[in-house]
Amino acid sequence: MNYPNGIKKEKNHNSNSKDVIYSNRGMTLESEINDSNEFYRLEKKAYIYKKPTPIKITKVDYPSRDKAIIKEAFFTVPSTTDYNGLYKGKYIDFEAKETQSKTSFTLRNIHEHQINHIRDIYENGGIAFLIIRFTSLNETYLLTAEKFIHFLKNESRKSIPIDFFRKEAYQIKDSYKPRIDYLKIVDTFIGGI
Amino acid sequence: MNYPNGIKKEKNHNSNSKDVIYSNRGMTLESEINDSNEFYRLEKKAYIYKKPTPIKITKVDYPSRDKAIIKEAFFTVPSTTDYNGLYKGKYIDFEAKETQSKTSFTLRNIHEHQINHIRDIYENGGIAFLIIRFTSLNETYLLTAEKFIHFLKNESRKSIPIDFFRKEAYQIKDSYKPRIDYLKIVDTFIGGI
Repeated sequence: MNYPNGIKKEKNHNSNSKDVIYSNRGMTLESEINDSNEFYRLEKKAYIYKKPTPIKITKVDYPSRDKAIIKEAFFTVPSTTDYNGLYKGKYIDFEAKETQSKTSFTLRNIHEHQINHIRDIYENGGIAFLIIRFTSLNETYLLTAEKFIHFLKNESRKSIPIDFFRKEAYQIKDSYKPRIDYLKIVDTFIGGI
Repeated sequence: MNYPNGIKKEKNHNSNSKDVIYSNRGMTLESEINDSNEFYRLEKKAYIYKKPTPIKITKVDYPSRDKAIIKEAFFTVPSTTDYNGLYKGKYIDFEAKETQSKTSFTLRNIHEHQINHIRDIYENGGIAFLIIRFTSLNETYLLTAEKFIHFLKNESRKSIPIDFFRKEAYQIKDSYKPRIDYLKIVDTFIGGI
């Protein structure tokens, strides 16, 4: 089953039909990136946010004047990446994904709309990339849009092998503050901006 | 009652408790901006999207393997503005609001988080502004973050009078393609970028 980023299914033992989902607050890639973005904001270094999960709302209750409860809604396919914002006056945009695989990152994890969006941003002067974590290997990579688009253009395979990341992407080492210092890597490839 | 941007309540005559809401496809400011953004993307001029409405999901049903239905969720206060993206390599960010008032735009329509966000973006080299439509007057204005922040700093009143818009903001005239050519105005104040 596919869940949107950062939403985790948990059995609700009081009911057979209803499950509780919540934003994962553990050491997932998403929570580490959110923490890092908060750190960057406090440091006045960058203003980067995760976009809300896109949904289509079909039913709402209004039990009281100021309260609305959504009673039916559906997850929809995102048109863009999850994260974007401002860094050094420039537009920055990326998608972050985790995989359990030890050998490759399957491209099914990235929607076609998102790939087109990354290409658009890259071709129009924005800073775009992917952050991919191989959780079983404890390896996290930043793959630039340039390398990603190049791979898609030249390879017919439906997944990106770990060796490609090891050769062509930047490894992001864990740090303390911020947890995932991806802007340090961005600095190396955007040059002297 | 306050509804998030672009979500409109409609009585569902089959039920007393359930209402159907939907994205407004009429000539609201939001739909005109969305159409204009699509036009800009097709022209490869800018890549600007509306962010999804932020919600907190508390219950989800899984009636079949690939389908998830959100059964309970709540609207949450947005931390940022509704629209952002890439224009001429730069980060662009804005909030759009309509008011029925003929005399002023009440600041209650913009959350404190959003005001802080607009200030952050402006002070850190992004392009930030408000688009405010006085629907009863059929007047639409682009108010730069600079003028907006200046107003907040110097005025104690809780609304921005229409005269302030007429003097200090740029009026956006209706056009055909795109409906709301706000980037034409952005060009005049970002200078020769």
